[in-house]
Amino acid sequence: MSLPLGFSEYPSRLLKARAGFNLASAPTNAAPGFDGKKDDGVAALAARAPVLARLQEQLFAESRFGGKKSVLLVLQAMDTAGKGGIVARVAGAVDPQGVKLKTFKAPTDEEKAHDFLWRVRPAAPDPGMLGVFDRSHYEDVLIHRVHGWADEAELERRYAAINDFEAELAAAGTTVVKVMLNLGKDEQLQRLSARLHDPTKYWKYSPTDLDERVFWSAYMDAYQKVFERTSTPAAPWHVVPADKKWYARMAVQEILIDALGGLNLQWPTGDYDLTHERTRLTDA
Amino acid sequence: MSLPLGFSEYPSRLLKARAGFNLASAPTNAAPGFDGKKDDGVAALAARAPVLARLQEQLFAESRFGGKKSVLLVLQAMDTAGKGGIVARVAGAVDPQGVKLKTFKAPTDEEKAHDFLWRVRPAAPDPGMLGVFDRSHYEDVLIHRVHGWADEAELERRYAAINDFEAELAAAGTTVVKVMLNLGKDEQLQRLSARLHDPTKYWKYSPTDLDERVFWSAYMDAYQKVFERTSTPAAPWHVVPADKKWYARMAVQEILIDALGGLNLQWPTGDYDLTHERTRLTDA
Repeated sequence: MSLPLGFSEYPSRLLKARAGFNLASAPTNAAPGFDGKKDDGVAALAARAPVLARLQEQLFAESRFGGKKSVLLVLQAMDTAGKGGIVARVAGAVDPQGVKLKTFKAPTDEEKAHDFLWRVRPAAPDPGMLGVFDRSHYEDVLIHRVHGWADEAELERRYAAINDFEAELAAAGTTVVKVMLNLGKDEQLQRLSARLHDPTKYWKYSPTDLDERVFWSAYMDAYQKVFERTSTPAAPWHVVPADKKWYARMAVQEILIDALGGLNLQWPTGDYDLTHERTRLTDA
Repeated sequence: MSLPLGFSEYPSRLLKARAGFNLASAPTNAAPGFDGKKDDGVAALAARAPVLARLQEQLFAESRFGGKKSVLLVLQAMDTAGKGGIVARVAGAVDPQGVKLKTFKAPTDEEKAHDFLWRVRPAAPDPGMLGVFDRSHYEDVLIHRVHGWADEAELERRYAAINDFEAELAAAGTTVVKVMLNLGKDEQLQRLSARLHDPTKYWKYSPTDLDERVFWSAYMDAYQKVFERTSTPAAPWHVVPADKKWYARMAVQEILIDALGGLNLQWPTGDYDLTHERTRLTDA
């Protein structure tokens, strides 16, 4: 497979959080591996959208004839980092019939009464689908660590449970693609401010966004721990610079294309007698 | 509101199945009200997609602050008429976070054990959402009539139950938009044939498509009955010529824009003190 449009390296490799990865030194306002400017990035996103859509269609087609493969994109980030934009512009370019989106909010009382993975398991994608988690089970080791809602022993138990869960998914045929959108703290301030100065965006702002901002460095520490404990060969993390929305979107798009491209998908031949059906049709 | 791009009349009005509507004389290979050619139609679809997306975003925004409105697109058609294309190209242009798609297949044993609306009610859109039914509760008065799985008295009971159900939805804030894609019988033959002569489409073909084709005229009679019994002021049917895919897509897009445009949507002001939050942000 040749390198994606405009890239000198695969984003999927370049942005992977490998052993020794250090979030504190990872760029937020950069476009690693990409040689162009914003306009080039926007054009590349549009040009590559049909490639992603077609791969997902093949995944779906295979599933209609017994294929078990699926892909799950797990999105985590600080507020305003652009998860919604990834859902709308990257996953949104795929046929909605092939996308299973799950947005994880604060758990309900019923959900709280169960193990933290209880509400996550049924949200995993069926064969043929591109699943998207907007937030995820990682909230249970992020906000819970930041606010001390779970102690160290419990957090360690959860990391292990997450690794087991994701290994199960992988064994069942799901390619797990985990992405953290890495936003700069200053850029967040700009984006929150924009929401408070545009009447079409007032509804997106919540005072709690600012409350959580106070805990920024604690969140970064919690993310660092997440990468150390849960970036496994079966389900690695990718940390994507997110200050440039156009870059984050194209990088995630390429990471997904790479994941689907690696599945060696084929158009199914059908389970009927082609010659016979062609003859029937001629007489119909 | 001015007429949509390229149209000399509103498709939402022009294509409505009013009292006296006769399916047998409705065109399949036409572009009613549209003055342009295919290229113009494709361009108009792309140009109007952001309008639909923005209206849905406003609908969603209102719902975050107590708004109860939603829209439900009910799609019915013969095989290959292009329901999938409407989902992908029309609903697909809306943020996936705002779309709730439900594809109705043959009912499961559990579903069969309940009233025919049992599986339909939970699939209705929540406030703020654009719901899409790919097939629907109308199968229970279409395929059931064609194959004699329900007698006349039961079918009449179902028409009444459907009207009650849709009136309930409307009363709760859901604008119900019903669309039948009106495909020509010859055009279906061409499309089935195309599926049997393109390896990337073999998977879309099923021998049962041809089995059902034998019942074409019985299906047309069943649709005619549906329009007579269930095209109500609260939930009218639109019959959209579907031989030209480009026309059907733009017509459905305009019907949806008209439905959303009629809801008098406003950007919410938010439920916080704007001045106070701006000050807090300056200090953050």
